[in-house]
This record gives sequence, C-alpha cells and structure tokens, in this order.
Amino acid sequence: MTELPETLANPSLEALRAVHDASSDLVRETPTMTSRSLSRDVGGEIVLKAENLQRTGSFKIRGALAKLRSIDVEGCAGVVTGSAGNHAQSLAYAARSLGIPCRVYMPQAAAIGKVEAVRAFGGEVVRGGEGVDSCVNLARDVALEEGMEFVHPFDDADVIAGQSGVGVELAGQVPDLRKVVVPVGGGGLASGIAIALKLHDPDVEVIGVQAEGCAAAVESMDVHHPVEIEQASTIADGIAVKRPGNLTLPLLERWLDGIVTVDDEAIVGAMVRLAERTKLVTEGAGAVGVAALLTGAVEPASTGATVAVLSGGNVDPRLLAAAINRHEITESRRVRISTRVPDSPGGLADLLQAIALAGANILEVSHVRDLADLDLSQTSVDLTLETRGPDHTAELRAGLAAAGYEVGEG
Amino acid sequence: MTELPETLANPSLEALRAVHDASSDLVRETPTMTSRSLSRDVGGEIVLKAENLQRTGSFKIRGALAKLRSIDVEGCAGVVTGSAGNHAQSLAYAARSLGIPCRVYMPQAAAIGKVEAVRAFGGEVVRGGEGVDSCVNLARDVALEEGMEFVHPFDDADVIAGQSGVGVELAGQVPDLRKVVVPVGGGGLASGIAIALKLHDPDVEVIGVQAEGCAAAVESMDVHHPVEIEQASTIADGIAVKRPGNLTLPLLERWLDGIVTVDDEAIVGAMVRLAERTKLVTEGAGAVGVAALLTGAVEPASTGATVAVLSGGNVDPRLLAAAINRHEITESRRVRISTRVPDSPGGLADLLQAIALAGANILEVSHVRDLADLDLSQTSVDLTLETRGPDHTAELRAGLAAAGYEVGEG
Repeated sequence: MTELPETLANPSLEALRAVHDASSDLVRETPTMTSRSLSRDVGGEIVLKAENLQRTGSFKIRGALAKLRSIDVEGCAGVVTGSAGNHAQSLAYAARSLGIPCRVYMPQAAAIGKVEAVRAFGGEVVRGGEGVDSCVNLARDVALEEGMEFVHPFDDADVIAGQSGVGVELAGQVPDLRKVVVPVGGGGLASGIAIALKLHDPDVEVIGVQAEGCAAAVESMDVHHPVEIEQASTIADGIAVKRPGNLTLPLLERWLDGIVTVDDEAIVGAMVRLAERTKLVTEGAGAVGVAALLTGAVEPASTGATVAVLSGGNVDPRLLAAAINRHEITESRRVRISTRVPDSPGGLADLLQAIALAGANILEVSHVRDLADLDLSQTSVDLTLETRGPDHTAELRAGLAAAGYEVGEG
Repeated sequence: MTELPETLANPSLEALRAVHDASSDLVRETPTMTSRSLSRDVGGEIVLKAENLQRTGSFKIRGALAKLRSIDVEGCAGVVTGSAGNHAQSLAYAARSLGIPCRVYMPQAAAIGKVEAVRAFGGEVVRGGEGVDSCVNLARDVALEEGMEFVHPFDDADVIAGQSGVGVELAGQVPDLRKVVVPVGGGGLASGIAIALKLHDPDVEVIGVQAEGCAAAVESMDVHHPVEIEQASTIADGIAVKRPGNLTLPLLERWLDGIVTVDDEAIVGAMVRLAERTKLVTEGAGAVGVAALLTGAVEPASTGATVAVLSGGNVDPRLLAAAINRHEITESRRVRISTRVPDSPGGLADLLQAIALAGANILEVSHVRDLADLDLSQTSVDLTLETRGPDHTAELRAGLAAAGYEVGEG
C-alpha cells in the first residue's frame, strides 16, 4: 500500500478550502440547479452541480491549477503530461495563465478537436503513443530527462486537493445536502469531493459511478489493490481509466460509501435527457451520475438533497448528435416501418392519412418499387415516423394492421 | 397608434422590480457567464445571460406568471392561449403552480415533444388550426365565449412587465454593463429588457436581433406600423412571428437602439458553438444574439460588457443533431471525397496512409465497384473525412493530388 502524504492521510477542511479559495481567480464557482422533472421521475430532491460549465469544460482545471500553484515556478522548465482530453486542456490553460510552458503527449488517435483545444490554450502537443497510458509514461520519462514537472491526471495529492473544490462549493451551495453521486475514472474527483464533504458533514453519503465498460476502480476495490483491466469500451471516455491510482484507490476505499456501474445505453439516455430537459451539454463521463439515478443503480436520499455532479461537457458535437439519434431509436420515438400500398392514385395518401390519425409524425417516406417479390399492383413504402414512445408505437402498428396494412420493420 | 397603458407609457424601475421579486418563488435568477473564447473572437467582453436554463426552458415563464398574478383568480374559469411552443409550456406551468385551469390551442403540425410538454405541465391541449395565428385567434374567441382569461404571448402590458425581469437581473448581475443583444419575435422580451435597463442606466445600449427569414419587426419599424409578412422561414421558430404587437411595436421604436437580422446559417453556427464551447443548449431564437456578434451584425461595446441574452433552449434534440451535422459540413470539417484506387492488395491501404499523413481522420469508407465508366483495374472509393477546417481540407486535396489520386466530390 502506498503511503499517503500527510495532507491526504489527515486532511483538513480548512486546508482544502484554502486551496479552493486560492484558485478563485481562474476557477468558476459552477452553479447548482434543482431539476423538478428529474426529482419527480427519480423520487427524490435532485440537484445538478453543473461542473460542465467550468472553464475548459470540466473540473480538471481545479486539480491542474492546484498542482501548478504548489510547484516552484522559478526553477521549473515547464510542465508535461500525457492525456487524450480534459486533463490536457486544463493543464495547458492553467499553465498559460501562470506563464509556465506546457507540453502534452497525446495519443495518435486523439480527436482533432481535443488536440486543437490544447493548442488554442498555448500547449505544445506531441502526438505519439498508442494510448493514454503510454503517453503518461512517456511524459513521466521526459520530465525526468528535461527537468520538467510531471503532472499526473489524478494520482497526485495536490491534484486531488484541487478537485475537492467541487465538494467545498457544494457544502456551501446546497442546504440539507444528504447524498452526492460522482463519476469515477482515476478517482481524483470522487476522492477529493468525498474528503471535503465528509469533513464538512460525515453523514453526507458519497457514491461513485463507473462505466460498465471500464470499471477498474470497482474491480480494484473488490480486491483492495489496483487492478489493470485490459479493454476499455465505453462512450464515457473521460472516465475510461484502466487502472485507478496508488493514492486514489485507498482514498476511494476509505471515503466512498459505495460504487456502482451504468451501461452505455443509460449514459446516452442521460446525456440526451440533460440536453433536452436541462439544456446542458454533458460528455458521457459527466452524465453517469444522472444515469445511475435514472436506472435506479443509486437511490436518491429519502429526505434532503441528492446531488449529481456533471463533471464535464467536452463531447465532440458529432458524438452528441449520434447519441441523440441513437437514443430516439432506443426510446422507440423514432420508428422505421415498411409496408405496401396499392400502386394507384390515392394509395399512399390513404396510408399517410391512417398514420396521421394515429397521431404519429412522418419524418421520411421512400417508395421502393423494384423488389422482385412484390405484387405488381402494389408498391413498397419505407417510412420513418416519430411517435410519443413505445406504447404509442405499438398502438400505431395495431391501428395500421386493423386498417389492412401488413407492417414490417423498415 | 394603440394607446399604451400607464405602466408602459410611464414605466418605473421600482414597479418592474416589484413584478420581478413577486415571481421569485417560481422563476429562477438565471446565471450569467463570461465567455473568453467568444470575447476573443468578437473583440469585446462578452457575457451570456443563460435564460435557456430558466424553468420551462425559456424566459416565457416570466411573462406568463406576471400575467396570472395580475388577474382575479377567484373569478376566473381558467386561462387560454394559442401557441406552438414556449408560451404554451410556460402558461401551463404557471397556471398549474397557481391552481388555475389552462387550455392551449396548438397547431395541428406542432411538434409532439411540445404538445407532450404542455400536457406534462397539466395543460389541456386542443389541436387544430393551421398555424399559430389562427390558434391565437381561436383562443381569443373561446375566452370571450367561456369567460376564460386570454393570455397573449407578447402583446400584453403585464406579460411585457414580466419579461423585463431579465433586464432587472442583468442590472444587478453585470458590472459595467454597456450593451445588450436581445432576440426579437413579437417584441415582448426585447421591449421589457430595454425598458428595465434604460431606466437603470440610459447609456446601456439595447440592440434587437431578428431572423432574416421572418423580420416583421424590422419591416414594421421602418414604416412605423405593424406589418404582417406572408411567409416565415427560419430555424428560429421561437421568434418566427409574422406581425409584431400593437403594444410592442411602439415600445421597440421608443426603447431599442437598433435592430439587425441574421440568417439561418449564422444561427446554426451559433447554436453549435454554444453547445460545443459553452456547453449550453439553445434553440435557434436563443442563439441569434451570439450569431449577430459572430457575424459582425452587432459590434460589441468597445469598453465594458456586452451581454447576449440566450432566451431559450427548447429545441427538438433531433433538430440539434441535424444542426450539428449541417454545421460540420458548412465548416468543411466534415468532407466527402471520392477517388479511385488500384483494385489490388494494398491499394486502399496506400490511400488511407496518405490521408493519415495529411492529418485527417477517416470517418467512413465505402467501395463502389460497379460504376460502368471505371477502368476494371480500379475501384472507386467514397470517403467521409474529418479535417481541421477549410485550409486543412484544401491541403489534404493538394496532398492527395500530388500523390497521384484524382479527387472528386463524394
């Protein structure tokens, strides 16, 4: 077991508050929002901590800045890290703000948008390495060789103290706070928040959430040492960490009240719901807390407020668009059907009329005439429809069948 | 010219403040956010007023509630209006909160999601009428017949006083406020904000923005009486109002410092940018202020803060997804090309290698073998690529041409 530095072995709320307050020039106190529709659906008082509205789009700026404030800037040739996303952007942003050079090793396959964002914040990007892990190792080696300061994305006492700022803020923002649901990747955010809140009030419960497709912290907590999983497969790339940290694992074990997992379908559903109802863009990692509440993996507190931390919003817009389209189909609000109509005037019009009567909207119609098995007097029609959900879809199919249409999948 | 009621002819900031404060139990004080990237790109200090985070997803709740608070609830059989969207939801929400029955006439073609939202807030929905205008007229008639209170979406002194709450809040939230950019549909929000802010400080400039495809207020202000335009065609359905109000038009003329238009491409660009960079979902109407700043239609104040009011976020998620995809293509970040490779082992691999060297990501590849005009030794390939933008795309095309590939549009 790694020995914890004193600040983490015997943390004090005053010290964490001081770290938080020292960064108030660059870090936003992000708003909290009650959500009546989520509260109703989940059966508790749900509050969202909109950390996706943080500068650089995620909580990572808190830890990066706390770390940079802890090092000797004069004697430092610059900072270096390996990352595919949020940590890279945040470190570049924080370093530029303090006038420190910053280099980031990013995987060859890193999204162009994320590479550009790091460059826009003045960071030097070196592409190379298969994945994040090899980039982190490369950065650690380079730091030693070139006298730069290596900044680990999560396994660092100063970084963890920085992330605890989310908890420090929640303690002041949410009266009657009873439970907090936090995404867990490497574990820096979750342990930071848990420490701050438990010091504030030991009765506040803190529950971690991982993506089912990359639940290394869950596995590691089972066996009480860091386990490295082989394959990460989840839409929540921000928490797709294959091995929790040597510092963070014992902290998670000590401070969390529980940890659960959610699958990608639940994560996509939460992302779309947050965009549709709450008008907030979240990345997959940022939506896992809401996913856990909506699926029942986490029960809200029976009295008092339950907070879901929306940890970040850095999602490629294209991925968000794909998530919306996928969700519409999953929810059976967008339905493709195929049927046949008489190949004579009014044939299609009658079908469309029957669909309109059933209350569905028609999004797309295409005629398919040249299928060999069709009666020559009929023409095949593919339709994409919008319904109110699975029940309405079933009703629609029954209505069309009753009207004499043979309905297949489109 | 319609005579203005006394509250609008001689408005007082104290009275507007009182309206605002009376609704603080149901209306959120929405956050303001500085945006460094917008500020940099636009060349001024840009602040966003996130009214899309308002309850019911738009500012409309402010006016609806102010109106309901002004009527005699005891003697009222209920409230009724005609609307396709935000006003309907807001009135239903406000009416339920005060225990008043609410009926909304919605166009036959209204989006299912909006109909469902009104019902979810306890409103009775009657579908019928071709467009919003006929629904509004229907509601006005029904109100007379059935002794219900008709609530106009914008042309009502109490509604306008309610919308002024956005201005009341801005006066307190933004130090050194110099300019405010506000969407204009019917004109209720813009005139309300302008009145509150000019009473607060006559030097604050207030500029209205309309969608080019439905600029009835612009035309009407030119000729100093309400003009009805025939066709509304814009993605910004929330401000697609074909005729400004009898009350609002003189108010816009008196209180606005200017009014401009933006086209749908600019609106889509602003929506996507707000989602990508600021993590806020806006509807088209909510994004026109940012569109006006990004296109230069409105110059930011040279010193002090310029606020863009994000008036609402009620966009069909599918429309948001479509906007993202359209914007990617407009920005030439998503490019479709078509070329040919030798139909032999390694032919495609060489092409993909050349593309990777040019730094583009490959999103989709499809082989098209059966085109008649192809040399039999070659196979046609369609590719969808992600680039960093137009310059990078041009570079990529030049690189492929230099490597011997004949590149066409995909």
